[in-house]
Amino acid sequence: MHRFAFVNNKFICFNKANIHIEDRGLQFADSVYEVVPVINSKLLDFDFHIKRLKFSLAELSIKYKINKKNIHIIFKKLIKKNSILNGIIYLQITRGVQSREHVYKKNLKPTIILYTQKKKFNMPSTNYKGYKAITFPDIRWARRDIKTTSLLPNILASNFASKKGAYEAILIKNNIVTEATHSNVWIIKNNTIYTHPSNSDILKGITRKVIKKIIKDEKLLFKEKSFTLKQLINADEVFITSSGSLVTPIIQVDNKKINSGKIGKLTNKLAQLYEQQIQ
Amino acid sequence: MHRFAFVNNKFICFNKANIHIEDRGLQFADSVYEVVPVINSKLLDFDFHIKRLKFSLAELSIKYKINKKNIHIIFKKLIKKNSILNGIIYLQITRGVQSREHVYKKNLKPTIILYTQKKKFNMPSTNYKGYKAITFPDIRWARRDIKTTSLLPNILASNFASKKGAYEAILIKNNIVTEATHSNVWIIKNNTIYTHPSNSDILKGITRKVIKKIIKDEKLLFKEKSFTLKQLINADEVFITSSGSLVTPIIQVDNKKINSGKIGKLTNKLAQLYEQQIQ
Repeated sequence: MHRFAFVNNKFICFNKANIHIEDRGLQFADSVYEVVPVINSKLLDFDFHIKRLKFSLAELSIKYKINKKNIHIIFKKLIKKNSILNGIIYLQITRGVQSREHVYKKNLKPTIILYTQKKKFNMPSTNYKGYKAITFPDIRWARRDIKTTSLLPNILASNFASKKGAYEAILIKNNIVTEATHSNVWIIKNNTIYTHPSNSDILKGITRKVIKKIIKDEKLLFKEKSFTLKQLINADEVFITSSGSLVTPIIQVDNKKINSGKIGKLTNKLAQLYEQQIQ
Repeated sequence: MHRFAFVNNKFICFNKANIHIEDRGLQFADSVYEVVPVINSKLLDFDFHIKRLKFSLAELSIKYKINKKNIHIIFKKLIKKNSILNGIIYLQITRGVQSREHVYKKNLKPTIILYTQKKKFNMPSTNYKGYKAITFPDIRWARRDIKTTSLLPNILASNFASKKGAYEAILIKNNIVTEATHSNVWIIKNNTIYTHPSNSDILKGITRKVIKKIIKDEKLLFKEKSFTLKQLINADEVFITSSGSLVTPIIQVDNKKINSGKIGKLTNKLAQLYEQQIQ
């Protein structure tokens, strides 16, 4: 079946979806993106993703005016055209095409790229899994709060994780856990849930935001506070959250089993509550 | 006149030189590059650039076997086809195209992109100019020694410089001058020339390497040693080096004139010696 992408205002055949070699997204990582989950053909947290996209564009002064209603229509059309029941929509906006130089010209026309991928999500109702993570130095740039395609350090860490048979690489900066290569990290110790505060050291995850709300509604003990590598290793439970991984248990960090290598009770509870909310 | 690019083993019309939207260079800045100067239709320091390209590819485990002889032939053909007297050849190698996920598959076919730009170089023999620079926090990732397209922080700094009417942004990390957004930085104080040691904090510039050789041959006083923002501001002379800027004098840093806003004697001497060598 034909698969569609949407590039610069046109639905086109995915295989022929190209951009120019002088696109600043390709030459300078001068671009931002969002990954929006589709569950049962429904968009998850669309408004939050659009809000963060606006923030990323504004921080880089990429002048693209988001028409939320219009993007929503394109998203829905792509889901239909590509028959997405469960998957993601990838949306990338680059600053546009320009004769190569570091300084960007005003009034460039941003390049808009959208396409879909099918995906199985890790949820308590269907074969819920816990995974191994490894730790890796956080060598990224200083603005992790902007969702840019400047992802090379994440790639190197992810690939190292994969080689070690791990699902994620948890990033460590000055002995502190910041986040993971494509998810936020949480620990539970003595029934208190911890995650790194949202500053420029981490990406403010959408799933992170929703889980925080659930924790509050359930009146669980919670501290938005950074924790050390040692606290991570000695945690009662560890889990990660992201638009792709939802709430995914981490049952081993490096060589240390967490909760004897089993999915923790509180993690499972949060994942169930989250699944109820999104289904 | 038709302008040519060389993409994936073919000379093609520059305007139609495209890559796929799932190229990892576009999605993850998972790519490396080189900019090779062309002076009087001759390639400058070709061997050094190829050597550094090999280093960058190896550090990222991008499996592209460089055929130096073959690349040299393509470079020469591009110079001829595009009638380049003075300019640059831009060469980018991405890890290739893959269904989007952080972890890369083995045996991807790298994407090779080459094209030319015409350019006037700043040289003592023809209207030699000194420029203003501003200082900016060095917020880049930890592997500046690899020449990757993960250049977003450089873009933000360059653009800030441009807004302030400056030619370059000199980057400051923990009060130390590392380098500039697309050049290495040198100061002269009491006839001694200083530049930052080549470690992972800076890119090991090709022009930097050649200038070091000239300094040695001329028996000038030289220390490969980092210097502070204060030492930069109080220097007798400041200059930058790169494949695009060659040896370019900096005659103002932020609001402080250097050498009363004139090109310094030793800078001029080095630039002349360098020009003699490359002409």
